[in-house]
Amino acid sequence: MTDHPVREERRPANEGRRAAPRNRAALIAAAREIYAESGLDAPLSAVARRAGVGQGVLYRHFPDRAAVAAAVLEENVRQIEQAAASAGADLPCALGVLTWHQAESAAFVGMLHAVGAFGGSDVPPYAAALSVRVERALRAHLPEGHRLAAEPDDLMIAVAMVSGAVTGPGRERRAHRALAAWRLLGVEVGPVRPFGV
Amino acid sequence: MTDHPVREERRPANEGRRAAPRNRAALIAAAREIYAESGLDAPLSAVARRAGVGQGVLYRHFPDRAAVAAAVLEENVRQIEQAAASAGADLPCALGVLTWHQAESAAFVGMLHAVGAFGGSDVPPYAAALSVRVERALRAHLPEGHRLAAEPDDLMIAVAMVSGAVTGPGRERRAHRALAAWRLLGVEVGPVRPFGV
Repeated sequence: MTDHPVREERRPANEGRRAAPRNRAALIAAAREIYAESGLDAPLSAVARRAGVGQGVLYRHFPDRAAVAAAVLEENVRQIEQAAASAGADLPCALGVLTWHQAESAAFVGMLHAVGAFGGSDVPPYAAALSVRVERALRAHLPEGHRLAAEPDDLMIAVAMVSGAVTGPGRERRAHRALAAWRLLGVEVGPVRPFGV
Repeated sequence: MTDHPVREERRPANEGRRAAPRNRAALIAAAREIYAESGLDAPLSAVARRAGVGQGVLYRHFPDRAAVAAAVLEENVRQIEQAAASAGADLPCALGVLTWHQAESAAFVGMLHAVGAFGGSDVPPYAAALSVRVERALRAHLPEGHRLAAEPDDLMIAVAMVSGAVTGPGRERRAHRALAAWRLLGVEVGPVRPFGV
């Protein structure tokens, strides 16, 4: 596998440089789909195949399975941040993107849960950092007097509650339960969709 | 270990018969405490020691680790049923007992979660049966027009939501987060306590 990068370096420099970010994005998108369908144990060869690249390209971007999973989580959080930062964004809009990722990714739900579960001590540092970024993106749009603004912990307790409700075998059922959870919380949620799609 | 039961059989029959249910109850109470402190991986020897019985007695009641865990869950659910069936019981009272067990037992939360997670297909049959009993006990006290009576799934989605919020290293923090979750749901909860204590 180590010879693939070398082989790719020999391509015309511009093509290689252009292809790298494109390949990386395709790999992350493919990994998200594969994980949603088959869980985190799905073989990386399936991810490479779905992305339309060779396994060597995959391993050049991601040294191991954990690196792929971390990149997907990072991209999930980046989408929530982008949704929150986009023109005219409000809390429902950001929550809609959050909810899409909760319904799509058990690993994302697990990341949010890990942070709550161990209270900052035993949490993998990357999970804690990502969870802080989710909270910051949402809190930027939390109006004073909002149902989730009464106590400092309420916002992320609500996110954990929706994560607890988002269970089930299919993404449609999971999204349905997530929306029921937000309804029970009395919190408005915008369209449940990924950002930028 | 197999010789302990034999040795106990040699005791006067009445003493043995009287001791058996008492020992079983002590083992379940001890297991609940040990699991809450150290998780489901705690050694069974610690459970026997806490209960004040020999390991042989433990193995006579419970053939293996899974049997101990199942007995604790069964006892959790029985307490919720008893609370719901007691004189003057109402939904807040039953929810208080439920919430105590959610704060006490990650395994109990896991059981409720497993049922939601696999939607009745891949759930261990005992977990599905226990979850149905929890739902039945609560629903018996759900008044028409209650916040959780609007849609058929709302009651158990709310239970899953509270389970999602009940995370953290100590039972005090877990109980605090559970109560915050019920507050966010706008649902009244009675005293958070085990039943019959």
